[in-house]
Order: sequence, then C-alpha cells, then structure tokens
Amino acid sequence: MIKTDIQVRFSDIDMLGHVNNVVLQQYYDLGKTSYLSDVLALSGLWKDVSYIVVNTNTNYMGEVFGDRKFHVTTRISRIGSKSITFVQEIVDSVTEVVKSRSESVLVAFDLKTREGILVSDDHRQKIEAHEGIE
Amino acid sequence: MIKTDIQVRFSDIDMLGHVNNVVLQQYYDLGKTSYLSDVLALSGLWKDVSYIVVNTNTNYMGEVFGDRKFHVTTRISRIGSKSITFVQEIVDSVTEVVKSRSESVLVAFDLKTREGILVSDDHRQKIEAHEGIE
Amino acid sequence: MIKTDIQVRFSDIDMLGHVNNVVLQQYYDLGKTSYLSDVLALSGLWKDVSYIVVNTNTNYMGEVFGDRKFHVTTRISRIGSKSITFVQEIVDSVTEVVKSRSESVLVAFDLKTREGILVSDDHRQKIEAHEGIE
Amino acid sequence: MIKTDIQVRFSDIDMLGHVNNVVLQQYYDLGKTSYLSDVLALSGLWKDVSYIVVNTNTNYMGEVFGDRKFHVTTRISRIGSKSITFVQEIVDSVTEVVKSRSESVLVAFDLKTREGILVSDDHRQKIEAHEGIE
Repeated sequence: MIKTDIQVRFSDIDMLGHVNNVVLQQYYDLGKTSYLSDVLALSGLWKDVSYIVVNTNTNYMGEVFGDRKFHVTTRISRIGSKSITFVQEIVDSVTEVVKSRSESVLVAFDLKTREGILVSDDHRQKIEAHEGIE
Repeated sequence: MIKTDIQVRFSDIDMLGHVNNVVLQQYYDLGKTSYLSDVLALSGLWKDVSYIVVNTNTNYMGEVFGDRKFHVTTRISRIGSKSITFVQEIVDSVTEVVKSRSESVLVAFDLKTREGILVSDDHRQKIEAHEGIE
Repeated sequence: MIKTDIQVRFSDIDMLGHVNNVVLQQYYDLGKTSYLSDVLALSGLWKDVSYIVVNTNTNYMGEVFGDRKFHVTTRISRIGSKSITFVQEIVDSVTEVVKSRSESVLVAFDLKTREGILVSDDHRQKIEAHEGIE
Repeated sequence: MIKTDIQVRFSDIDMLGHVNNVVLQQYYDLGKTSYLSDVLALSGLWKDVSYIVVNTNTNYMGEVFGDRKFHVTTRISRIGSKSITFVQEIVDSVTEVVKSRSESVLVAFDLKTREGILVSDDHRQKIEAHEGIE
C-alpha cells in the first residue's frame, strides 16, 4: 500500500465548497502515478509500456470539504494476465474518515504497437513483493 | 435521452494524444447538467435542491483521440425513492463509435439542511414523461 | 476576428460562483485554437509547426458569474518576424459587457528541432487577409 | 518570500510533454494561497474578505517538462491603498532555472457587499513585516 498526500488547489473546489467529484479522480490518478513510480519504477512520462484505465467504479461517501487535508491510499488487489486492479481510498488526514473509495482496472499497453500486452513477470514480481501476495 | 455536443479544450488532451480519462468525467458532467437543465429546469447554479453523485461506474472502450468531435448521450434508467440513475455514453460524432459508457447514481439533496431527501413528484413526472417510462 | 462560443463546465465555477480566473485562460485557449484552425488551417494536434505562448497579459474587469453565456473574440494585432500577438476579450453574450481582456505573444516553433523559427509567408498572408492588414 | 513545492498531476501535462500554460496559472494560485494563508492567516475558504485578481502578466521563458520537480516563489512587491502586487516565479527545483515569471495585481474585496475595499492595516503590517519593507 502506498500513501499519497494531496496538495489541494483553489480551482479544485466547486460552488458547494466541495472538492469536485471529477477532481477526486485526479487525486486517484496521483495515487496510481505514485504506485507505478515507487513500486514499478515507471515514470510519469511513459515511453514504451504503460497501463491504461479500462474501468473505474467509485463511491462517494460524504461531502469532501475543500479546507481539509487529504491523502489517497493505493494498493493492487489483483494481478490478471493482462490487467491489474487498483483499490484506492480518499481519506481525511485528520479524522481518518474515508470519503471515497474506488476500484479501477488497468490493462498493460504497448505504446508503440498501441495494443494490450501481458503484464510482465518483472512487474508481477514487484507488485507481489510489495503487496505481500503470492 | 439528451444529446450534448462537446467542446474539446486543448488542455483536455494528454501526452498520449488522448482526451484524459478524468476529463471524460467532465464531459459526463456536461451531459448531466444539460439533462437537469433541459428536463428538470434546474440551473447550473443550484440554490435549494440538487442531485449529488454517490457512485460512478465507467468503462473506457477505446482510445479517445483529441482531434475528433464527440457528443454525450444521457438518459435516466431508474428513479428510486431518493435517487436517480443516469446511463451515459461518449460517442465519436463522425463514426458513431461508443468510446466510453458510464452509469452513475445521484441522490436528491437539500442544500440548506445538507441532507438527502425524496425525489419530488414534480421531478419524477418530468423524467417519466421525458423517458417514456411509467 | 474570430468569435468562439464557450461551453461552460460545472467544474469551471469556483466557490464564489465565478468562473475561476485560471479557467478563463482555457477560454482564451479555445479562441486561439479556433483562430489557428480556421485562419491558418493548423489542427489542434500539431505535428510539425506550432505557436508557443511566451507572454500573456490579462485584465479581469468584473465578476464572471458561471450561469451566463460567454463568447471569446480573437484577433491578431501584430505579426513580427518570429512572433504573433493575439488580442482577445471574454464577452457576456447577452449583455455584450466585456468581462476580461488579454493580449498574448506567441512565437513560431518547430516541434522537431524544438527551436523558434520565422513566421512563414503562408501564415503571414493568411493572417493579413483575414485581419485586413497590410 | 514564500516557497511552495508543487505536486504535478498527470493531467497537467499536454501533448507536447509540457506542463500546460493554463496549469502554470494554477501553480501560481497555489503560491498565492500559501502566502495568504501563511502570512495573512486567510484560509482557502474565504468567508468575509478576500483578494480578487484584476491583472496577471506572465512570461514563459522555457519549456516546462512534466517529469521535473518545481516550486513557486511568491512575494509581495507593492502594497497600494486598495491593492497588492504579487511577483512570482516557477523554478525547476533541481537546476534552479526560472521557467516562468508572473506579476499580478489583486484588490481587497468584501465578499458580502461585493465591492472593493481598503487593504486593512492589519494586513499591511503583516506583509511589511514579512517582506521587510516599510
């Protein structure tokens, strides 16, 4: 599991004083980028291989007021032959209340051929080692 | 069903030449806003009653290249006692290929008491009349 | 002069009910993209040559409330040897009140060598013909 | 002078691999918000008094590649009777190269009457103490 502190921007906050739902997806992106960088050593400027999002399923459990501190927790719950599944939560850093929870499926993707590929053994081993799964 | 043409912004497009996934959620928002405005006569600057998103489930079926024209189709598939369910698609306006499909659940919300409320009979009737459901 | 109608997004509007200043820069971008596409036949997905912004100077003359209709007017006021100068305004489409005015300097840029280049004669002639300058 | 480290988001980066110009304005916002919070104890969710941007003048001196670390430096160069002037730079945190420089004028604003007001003595003294001006 990776924990990513979020830097809230003024423009993230909507008329209701909430962090806009769409912006919460940017926070989830920050968590995924941290994970891919820290665990798989993939940089943000992907050159050859990347993971492309094919499904996101997100619950919004409470109002996310823009004057709080948040972090995102990110882990991988499943490694398929061609896909990985992220489970993430947006958490109020003071109260520890979970404000949103999201599950997303990404497929391994070759940026040159623009086709889906197998998750490499190297990535599989790094994820298993990090998550303590076998 | 409401059809909303999308005005793509340069900043919508990411390093891979795709409309960023997060931005696709802004396109779905444009569709929902059109629906709430056209069918329920709710303005974008909600004063009393609004609908708050509690779940979104989105599939991304293909690369969404930023130099194409897109529209969003938006319909309501279900009216619960306290919630409504939107079904939306992002469609390439030239090829008619569906690039993404999203289902989202919104709850009726009183902006003053900040609590969930029943979907009003007025809204229920307008949706049923528009969608041709009973 | 090119006139571009703006499609306002819910997430454009900040806590004060205003279109956020930063988002107004996206509206100016929409105007520039329209101009480059309509007058110079440059697509949004630039392949070889582009224009890169080197300076923007923007005045904000009044509150831009998010429930109004807006358009951007865009013209080129000056063609230098290596640069062009855009003058743009964001206008309330109902009242015709100018809410913001921006002047920006862009340099011609070769995307392969990543260096500044001369404004081509082709572009110069198209701009002069469109603006009625000599 | 306040220094603010920036958390770059994947969606900040455009087709050219650059942080989009519009997003750089969000980085400048982060710097201003830090300053108003740290020096003037104004929170991001302004209740009564705020400062509203009336002019921004920004130079972009070089390509801002999205895989670098950046910070924003923010200081106030001038306090008028009704306005303050920010001078800010976006700096590559590794090379210390300045990538962009912006000057912006903000007016003090009463959020209830929605009118410009005098910069309070309290704010003036805090800024002067912080900047070492008299």
